[in-house]
Amino acid sequence: MKFINTNIGLYTDFYELTMAQGYFLTGQSQKNCCFDYFFRDNPFNGGYVIFAGLGDVLELVESFKFGSNDIEYLKSQGFRDEFLKYLKNFRFNGRIFSVKEGEVVFPFEPVLRVEGNIIECQLIETILLNILNFESLVATKAARITEAAKDKPVMEFGLRRSQGFGGINATRAAVIGGIKTTSNVFSAYHYSLQLSGTQAHSWIQAFDDELTAFRKFAEIYPDRCILLVDTYDTIKSGIPNAIITAKELEKSGNHLIGVRLDSGDFFSLSKQTRAMLDEAGLEYVKIIASNQLDEYLIEKLVSEQNAPIDLFGVGTRLVTGYPSASLDGVFKLSSFDNKPRLKFSENFSKSTLPGIKKIVRFSDQAGHFHHDVIAMDLDINLNEFYYPVLNGKKHLFENYIFQNLYNLTMENGIRLIDTPITEISEYRKARLELLPDEYKRFENKNIYIVGVSCSLQELRDGFFSYPYF
Amino acid sequence: MKFINTNIGLYTDFYELTMAQGYFLTGQSQKNCCFDYFFRDNPFNGGYVIFAGLGDVLELVESFKFGSNDIEYLKSQGFRDEFLKYLKNFRFNGRIFSVKEGEVVFPFEPVLRVEGNIIECQLIETILLNILNFESLVATKAARITEAAKDKPVMEFGLRRSQGFGGINATRAAVIGGIKTTSNVFSAYHYSLQLSGTQAHSWIQAFDDELTAFRKFAEIYPDRCILLVDTYDTIKSGIPNAIITAKELEKSGNHLIGVRLDSGDFFSLSKQTRAMLDEAGLEYVKIIASNQLDEYLIEKLVSEQNAPIDLFGVGTRLVTGYPSASLDGVFKLSSFDNKPRLKFSENFSKSTLPGIKKIVRFSDQAGHFHHDVIAMDLDINLNEFYYPVLNGKKHLFENYIFQNLYNLTMENGIRLIDTPITEISEYRKARLELLPDEYKRFENKNIYIVGVSCSLQELRDGFFSYPYF
Repeated sequence: MKFINTNIGLYTDFYELTMAQGYFLTGQSQKNCCFDYFFRDNPFNGGYVIFAGLGDVLELVESFKFGSNDIEYLKSQGFRDEFLKYLKNFRFNGRIFSVKEGEVVFPFEPVLRVEGNIIECQLIETILLNILNFESLVATKAARITEAAKDKPVMEFGLRRSQGFGGINATRAAVIGGIKTTSNVFSAYHYSLQLSGTQAHSWIQAFDDELTAFRKFAEIYPDRCILLVDTYDTIKSGIPNAIITAKELEKSGNHLIGVRLDSGDFFSLSKQTRAMLDEAGLEYVKIIASNQLDEYLIEKLVSEQNAPIDLFGVGTRLVTGYPSASLDGVFKLSSFDNKPRLKFSENFSKSTLPGIKKIVRFSDQAGHFHHDVIAMDLDINLNEFYYPVLNGKKHLFENYIFQNLYNLTMENGIRLIDTPITEISEYRKARLELLPDEYKRFENKNIYIVGVSCSLQELRDGFFSYPYF
Repeated sequence: MKFINTNIGLYTDFYELTMAQGYFLTGQSQKNCCFDYFFRDNPFNGGYVIFAGLGDVLELVESFKFGSNDIEYLKSQGFRDEFLKYLKNFRFNGRIFSVKEGEVVFPFEPVLRVEGNIIECQLIETILLNILNFESLVATKAARITEAAKDKPVMEFGLRRSQGFGGINATRAAVIGGIKTTSNVFSAYHYSLQLSGTQAHSWIQAFDDELTAFRKFAEIYPDRCILLVDTYDTIKSGIPNAIITAKELEKSGNHLIGVRLDSGDFFSLSKQTRAMLDEAGLEYVKIIASNQLDEYLIEKLVSEQNAPIDLFGVGTRLVTGYPSASLDGVFKLSSFDNKPRLKFSENFSKSTLPGIKKIVRFSDQAGHFHHDVIAMDLDINLNEFYYPVLNGKKHLFENYIFQNLYNLTMENGIRLIDTPITEISEYRKARLELLPDEYKRFENKNIYIVGVSCSLQELRDGFFSYPYF
């Protein structure tokens, strides 16, 4: 993150540092270990998650270090000199396997795997969870909105309602999920995204009447003019004035791009607006709708009501991942000192999968995703597996084409990839097309099959013969 | 924000820059104007909002400028040379009136008022909304949680699930709302907050058995040892091992601070845990609960079930302001070139209050808040007013003590205040105590009275005699 003016080492939970010092002092620090990142529930009561945030995480992990101010601060918090000396030269030197950013993923899959010594894995836990949980949440929301809008472009307008500086990450993730343009200049600059925007009510109010405000805007931006029409009254004032402005633009060889509806009933307003524009010979002028939109309202407008809206502007509900507001991803130790580890927990659904694993996806002959199997790294034949992940029974599926979803993305603490956002977004689109519709519906969705391999099931069963069970 | 390594001018919506160039080119830029920040709905279906974010906003506005990279980028986006020359030297030179940070505020109140030329007001709109909306949301959530916990301290653990870099702001706001300590080292360092933390399941799993893990932790942190007891089985393994560890600590003259329950049924687990600890003579060992807590669950545990829990750790639902996820604050032009302005809108509830205003709070003789009146800046006698704000009727209240809630917080673009977070949190506490309980209940709350003064009502009525109405 070129815009963070500090060493990012303090971007962590206090207990990570407490434990790191503990590992350092107990001699545990040189033992190898493996952590998995996974989530347990799809947000939005949906059927999938779009994995996002990998690019940011790799950049942050690569530059993760402690400056002398940080060390001084930690000293004031009681950390010991020998540990602080170690922290001063600390860099993450491990490796990270991950599915591709933009991939369609499902609950319990170890989407990303970190290998290293336990101090380095522990210290990056917080920032890794913070970024992956949030960007995956918003990319998933954006994908749902994009699906609902069908081929109509969606613009992101959310910075003013996003969660503080989280707006920076939200915009990146929204574009991965399928949003075309953003109003967020900061993120557009830093992540090379496409900008768009119109004008606010204050522009209209800053002139003595609406028509003057429209004319002045058209004069300055004759080739990119979109007019906000609801400041006084959309149908009685906004649209008639927009039509006058459009006709004047035509005289100078330009064309009004669109009008923006920002309140009222979009179905009836867009129908009336379209009729008035067409009547005036302005069939080319587009209608943009914004205000409290989400995937449900857009689906209704597009698929049920066939409202004549050409573009959607989406803000708050997209950038905050409303109503879920978070993805429940966790980062759990699966191997330590070459031995598989498992957390039991009071709730069985919160127990973890031990050992070094991989994710294998099986597709039908047409390429459509059929099921995934979480397997031990060296597993070969995966036709038989246990499903579901918790309390599974044995299933057999033959004749499917398989693909290992992991890539090595970081080695010795150095990033091996740096994928442009547009490319990640295209990958998301291609992958989502391979996911059958039954998993993408907002209501009555099917649950995608994710199983565990026979050897993984056996390894887990072994742990449950512990004295406590 | 000392940690943002860039000029913050690009942290704005694209249309702010588009409009700013428009104002610049149409000669509107030198006319004075006034914008109000206000919200329309209390989040969480609650009865109030804790106003937060002011300190961050003042710092960001004071340092708001465009660097040469930013100017170059804007040139590539089609902005004109004469405007870019203006932007290069741009600084906010206006003034800001505001209620105190930590104040209890209500819908439609112009909580903060910005005066300046229209370009400077417009350019800071996005960052002002972004910070105030989010920090007020989280401070309000934190206040609700703190109220529910009564006198039991609450710790914030949310960074891993917060919305990307929004976690930085979330922690600041949580402490304003009443949270005692945080796990977020980054924010603790930058905002001088108090840290706390225990250990994760990975610590327990990194040793061959739970007792060894506990002993090692106690050895390193004998004076601040809290043990996480649910890795294998809370009652059969975690608590017995914690008791052994506590007894060993006693021998070296130390005391186990607490045990942390992180899954299962908190009511029954805390009762059993308390009994087992007491039985072992460990009455002083505290019980800490964490996992999916919010104000409702804490209220149930504390007030209904009287569960023997001494501290709460709260994460996701606090730092994301779940389930509201956003506060709907807006920034609207109320005066331009010395003339009051008003936005109508298709939805009457979205119309605005014109003119230069103030907020006056009326309290009873015991100091308890009774009602607020939004008034014109020069209004004197406010015993008569219209209530509610929309479609109000005339009311008369006499014999209440009044207080003007505004303070001048910025003049000529220079901050006049820089209040420490602890002081803001104490102010929030004192003010919330003056708000009667009926407005603080989670269910069946009363609605606090906010009216508009007679002269403000008259001014607004004048606008509605416009031809469209």
